[in-house]
Amino acid sequence: MKASELCGRIGGTLEGEDVELVAAAGLDEARAGDLSFCKDPKHVKAVASTKASAVLLPRDWAHELPPCSVIRVDDPNHACMAAAAIFAPPEPERKPSVHPTAVIDPSASLGEGVYIGPWTVIEKNTVIGDGAVIEAQVFIGENCKVGAKTHIYPQVTLREGTVVGRECILHCGVRLGGDGYGFNNGRREDGSVYIEKIPQLGIVEIGDGVEIGSNTTIDRARIGRTYIGPMTKIDNLVQIGHNVKIKGYSGLIAQSGIAGSTEIGCGCLIWAQAGISGHIKIADGVQVGPQAGVPQSLDGSVKYVIGTPCESMKDFGARVLLPKMVSKIKTDVKELKAKKGE
Amino acid sequence: MKASELCGRIGGTLEGEDVELVAAAGLDEARAGDLSFCKDPKHVKAVASTKASAVLLPRDWAHELPPCSVIRVDDPNHACMAAAAIFAPPEPERKPSVHPTAVIDPSASLGEGVYIGPWTVIEKNTVIGDGAVIEAQVFIGENCKVGAKTHIYPQVTLREGTVVGRECILHCGVRLGGDGYGFNNGRREDGSVYIEKIPQLGIVEIGDGVEIGSNTTIDRARIGRTYIGPMTKIDNLVQIGHNVKIKGYSGLIAQSGIAGSTEIGCGCLIWAQAGISGHIKIADGVQVGPQAGVPQSLDGSVKYVIGTPCESMKDFGARVLLPKMVSKIKTDVKELKAKKGE
Amino acid sequence: MKASELCGRIGGTLEGEDVELVAAAGLDEARAGDLSFCKDPKHVKAVASTKASAVLLPRDWAHELPPCSVIRVDDPNHACMAAAAIFAPPEPERKPSVHPTAVIDPSASLGEGVYIGPWTVIEKNTVIGDGAVIEAQVFIGENCKVGAKTHIYPQVTLREGTVVGRECILHCGVRLGGDGYGFNNGRREDGSVYIEKIPQLGIVEIGDGVEIGSNTTIDRARIGRTYIGPMTKIDNLVQIGHNVKIKGYSGLIAQSGIAGSTEIGCGCLIWAQAGISGHIKIADGVQVGPQAGVPQSLDGSVKYVIGTPCESMKDFGARVLLPKMVSKIKTDVKELKAKKGE
Repeated sequence: MKASELCGRIGGTLEGEDVELVAAAGLDEARAGDLSFCKDPKHVKAVASTKASAVLLPRDWAHELPPCSVIRVDDPNHACMAAAAIFAPPEPERKPSVHPTAVIDPSASLGEGVYIGPWTVIEKNTVIGDGAVIEAQVFIGENCKVGAKTHIYPQVTLREGTVVGRECILHCGVRLGGDGYGFNNGRREDGSVYIEKIPQLGIVEIGDGVEIGSNTTIDRARIGRTYIGPMTKIDNLVQIGHNVKIKGYSGLIAQSGIAGSTEIGCGCLIWAQAGISGHIKIADGVQVGPQAGVPQSLDGSVKYVIGTPCESMKDFGARVLLPKMVSKIKTDVKELKAKKGE
Repeated sequence: MKASELCGRIGGTLEGEDVELVAAAGLDEARAGDLSFCKDPKHVKAVASTKASAVLLPRDWAHELPPCSVIRVDDPNHACMAAAAIFAPPEPERKPSVHPTAVIDPSASLGEGVYIGPWTVIEKNTVIGDGAVIEAQVFIGENCKVGAKTHIYPQVTLREGTVVGRECILHCGVRLGGDGYGFNNGRREDGSVYIEKIPQLGIVEIGDGVEIGSNTTIDRARIGRTYIGPMTKIDNLVQIGHNVKIKGYSGLIAQSGIAGSTEIGCGCLIWAQAGISGHIKIADGVQVGPQAGVPQSLDGSVKYVIGTPCESMKDFGARVLLPKMVSKIKTDVKELKAKKGE
Repeated sequence: MKASELCGRIGGTLEGEDVELVAAAGLDEARAGDLSFCKDPKHVKAVASTKASAVLLPRDWAHELPPCSVIRVDDPNHACMAAAAIFAPPEPERKPSVHPTAVIDPSASLGEGVYIGPWTVIEKNTVIGDGAVIEAQVFIGENCKVGAKTHIYPQVTLREGTVVGRECILHCGVRLGGDGYGFNNGRREDGSVYIEKIPQLGIVEIGDGVEIGSNTTIDRARIGRTYIGPMTKIDNLVQIGHNVKIKGYSGLIAQSGIAGSTEIGCGCLIWAQAGISGHIKIADGVQVGPQAGVPQSLDGSVKYVIGTPCESMKDFGARVLLPKMVSKIKTDVKELKAKKGE
């Protein structure tokens, strides 16, 4: 799109060449064809060195100009998001329809206005809510329920009995209802080891408004339900064990893992690569830092924990500084011993 | 199912309303429609506050009763598992049959009584054992072997040459036989970096009775085999590098990773998010704790290791307590210096 | 293949029985039917105890012989790789063809000599380059570009707008262009928590010669591009957040994760299970050790970092030895106090 046309759509004033623009990007990562933006004079160096083809600047910007076209606007951040929405690949249309290649059991029930993509399988007695979008190559087993307006991206699998709420988003490769790790293992009296499968008789139940990232896995309950409460947002490659219960309105960042039967409160944030042991409780509003390991329940008296085993930010900070402190003490002791020898 | 009907099936005596029951669940997580259970009086508070519709209690329970129906039984734990099996979503029937949409190469060989689901692909010269269940949307490359009674869930991929034993279970999204990370990299004399692909000429071989969790990845060998011995149980999102050899009867918990050419003994347990370096050996029966990092071989003289780099539980415990110990020493030194000044 | 036939193909001299050989393997892992190899006398014990059916040895090997046939060659390592290539499962032929079951939008454009496997979906306006191999059960959304000679293995998904360069390899289960974790969350004035989705308007762009391992996930940009530069090699189960920029010629080992908007230089190596925070820069040539956690930018003054939070190998080593050092100081202080008491 020409810069001049974009100006018309976002209310800007063009200075310089009427360049062709194809995408929005930050000042540093921008390249030819990109529109970038700057609001704050502290980024003036990045403005001066950007490779963008045009930069959105405040109308009253009086600092150095970029080596490209300028578009003056009231609010560069806001204008850039508006431009990004214009440049974005159009969201694929998923008009209500059932692709002829989908294999749907006659006992399954499809709501009004659903989209079912090619090669998707829907098994016996499963119910799909109104306006749901089930994309290509999805597998939905028997006796599942998918709520209204829920969007399931390609290559998701829902094992039998899984329940998904309304307006959820399941990204590619999500696995709901796997058996997970349910074994008894140990040693017999004769010293030989054994590993026996425990039947996993429960289901996974996902509340309304939940989003689950690519290739994340959530195991079915041993009995009852593994439960992900409403509005919980889960990133990619997260592992959630059997019988975990997440109250709701919590976030789980990429590659974190929650072991079986643990309960996560409301408004919690579990950062990337953190691991939470089984059979414990994390109180409402607690944050678990990246790579932290949580061996026991957190009652909320500390709001942010970090480290393995996890501790408060203050204790963790002291631990990080420990080598310096020990080095100082060592010197003191050396001095004391020297004086002693006097 | 009515509580009265359930009583008939599990041998219980109903007290209170003949409620409708739909699932089994723990006392805390239970809700209307759920059956819960309690054997031990120490959970009496949870009994009193449960939201279950009925609770299984011992025949001689004389403590506080739940605010709902009671079913008296000989062994509440056992009765609850029996009830859970009754409530469980019925296991989907996979009657011997080959779905007409499956694309199976004429040179592939299917055993007696196999089930092949829709949209599954089986390539040249592959052999599927008697009674195997290959669900929907599975990809099995050329020259693979799948043992009798093995169950492959939807959307699993087996690259060419993969061998899977008898009575294995592969959960959704398992990837066997990928190339993994096989590169030579470094710097040339002129300072430029290079990364070259090393051909991965071997295969993956899985022993009998192995279970592999959702989205777990196991790489093909550089030469020879990546080998997972019999009865090994692997959780979700685990990574196993090329030429790893697991003797058997071991467990690998979620998100753990084993780097290339490492050997894991018999009866080992690798806990969640642990990482084991390449080209080392872990002796029979060793346990590697959650998030532990193992940089070198473990000969079994220590049975449980934890931390990064890993150490014994005792050494790890001492390390955890280090800040307190240092703080104490600091005080002592301060005192000594003060006296000195006297 | 008979050992004698193999000798003919790799230029070796057979001593002992003309055994049947089926695979190449290391001395320790080899079993009946395997060919193994040894060049260095320091492995003579492994030679003596190998279960291989034949071992490649140098022509002048004068040490103990294996309990099996011997094949004398000039260079055992080189000969073994040649033999492994002979034993390897033949690489599946992917002759130019479009499987009749593939669902390809009429507006999509396929280059010369492409292979498109069964059950693959290619949506509107997508362009596939000459000689590309798109295997079975792949999903490629609208407005994507796949470069010439790129190989996409089964069950990969590319969301709309994704761009992949020439001669790339995408392994099974790779997810490109997911929304990732893009939410605003916090607390309202009334104390209630909120989590709002931020539209992810950008794309993923993959440079030439990039390889991406099984079940790895790369998120689309918030605006602009998540960019993986040329020749970058990514292992299995890696997570790369939105707007990450990897310059190129870098390696990312299994289960590592890069949070949003972080920039990775050229020739970097990120080891297994390492985690790198968002909005930071890692300088060219820096290595991040296994399980390390990187909270802030690394300017390259330290070439290898390890630990959480990461530090130099020297500082990390000192930290590991801290308990011993503290124990020594404690003894000194005790002595000083004792003398004081004299």
